[in-house]
Amino acid sequence: MRWSKISDAVVRRLPVYLRVLEIASREEGKISLSSQELGERAGVASALVRKDLAWFGEFGKQGVGYRISYLQEELRRILNLDREVRVGLIGVGSLGHALARYNIARSLDNEAYRTRLVALFDNDAAKWGEHVDHLEILPMDSLEDKVQELGLEMIIVTVPAQYAQAVANRIVKSGIRAILNFAPTKLVVPPEVRVSNSDVSLELQRLAYYLKV
Amino acid sequence: MRWSKISDAVVRRLPVYLRVLEIASREEGKISLSSQELGERAGVASALVRKDLAWFGEFGKQGVGYRISYLQEELRRILNLDREVRVGLIGVGSLGHALARYNIARSLDNEAYRTRLVALFDNDAAKWGEHVDHLEILPMDSLEDKVQELGLEMIIVTVPAQYAQAVANRIVKSGIRAILNFAPTKLVVPPEVRVSNSDVSLELQRLAYYLKV
Repeated sequence: MRWSKISDAVVRRLPVYLRVLEIASREEGKISLSSQELGERAGVASALVRKDLAWFGEFGKQGVGYRISYLQEELRRILNLDREVRVGLIGVGSLGHALARYNIARSLDNEAYRTRLVALFDNDAAKWGEHVDHLEILPMDSLEDKVQELGLEMIIVTVPAQYAQAVANRIVKSGIRAILNFAPTKLVVPPEVRVSNSDVSLELQRLAYYLKV
Repeated sequence: MRWSKISDAVVRRLPVYLRVLEIASREEGKISLSSQELGERAGVASALVRKDLAWFGEFGKQGVGYRISYLQEELRRILNLDREVRVGLIGVGSLGHALARYNIARSLDNEAYRTRLVALFDNDAAKWGEHVDHLEILPMDSLEDKVQELGLEMIIVTVPAQYAQAVANRIVKSGIRAILNFAPTKLVVPPEVRVSNSDVSLELQRLAYYLKV
């Protein structure tokens, strides 16, 4: 079952709630959290926490709050994180390298971190065979084979802007349905493919709006 | 004048429109764009483009569309990008290094890119005096002086999660009101300070929601 009417804004907050719950249980040994506490830690009003979660079911009890382990389990299921999601990365330049290291470190650090980077690709033959931690950099031409072999479901794109669309076309052809794009360009993909754009220059420009004038 | 009732979702799209306009004029020599074209290139419905821009004034003409140079100028003014906004970065590890290089390259590449990285800070004395392109890595202890001296208005935080809150406290004390946080942790700041979180692990978890089950 999918909840196709749930807005992106709601979906965007779910991983934040999940992280808050993980920290509260792992690092503080808590077993329940009120919507007030959950909201404060997530930076969201408690009424909005309750509204967001109500889309998916009845998780809390008046006066008791949310049982952490149960809500974690439910959020993981909703986010498809009740299983391992295997991720590839294309373009092992400086940003790609940094993101790869970051992701590998997060996975090792936390078993509950279910989006796992398992393959790196680059079209520069000089990089093939090099490693980032334990992961070998593979030729771009092995993408299609590796998507099948490793069961990749998401790709992180960290290639220069001018190559991003060609790379995206190839990703889509390989059967991938989720792309996290760091190239500062808009990717055109079929409607069944989801692209999330992460662009530091757009973020900075957006933040500038809130500066005092 | 500020438009305090404008939602974050609207503000988030403005830099995307600005980029679309820049590409259309710089690379294609266009002088006007319909809301249809602007929407297609920005990945937004044309009705939403018109609605977003209507918050700020009357920019388009029926049948003619938006005059690019005028709309660019207005969007830059709205986003406080009609002047240079000076940015610092704290934590020159692999991610910080990659983001610094990326930002410097963007600035050199495009004069219209008004958020300019001008200072790098790290608390590791071994890095002081090293350069990323033309920018020297400075001691963290010079932060307060440099904020004044260079007129910094925004800080990018790329320190490990466990140091991020302490760093944020110091940034706030130095008078900065806008933080772009890459540390995978929620920063607690006073209400007058704006934090934008960019977290690849949250992005991946969010994307997982849209995977087929």
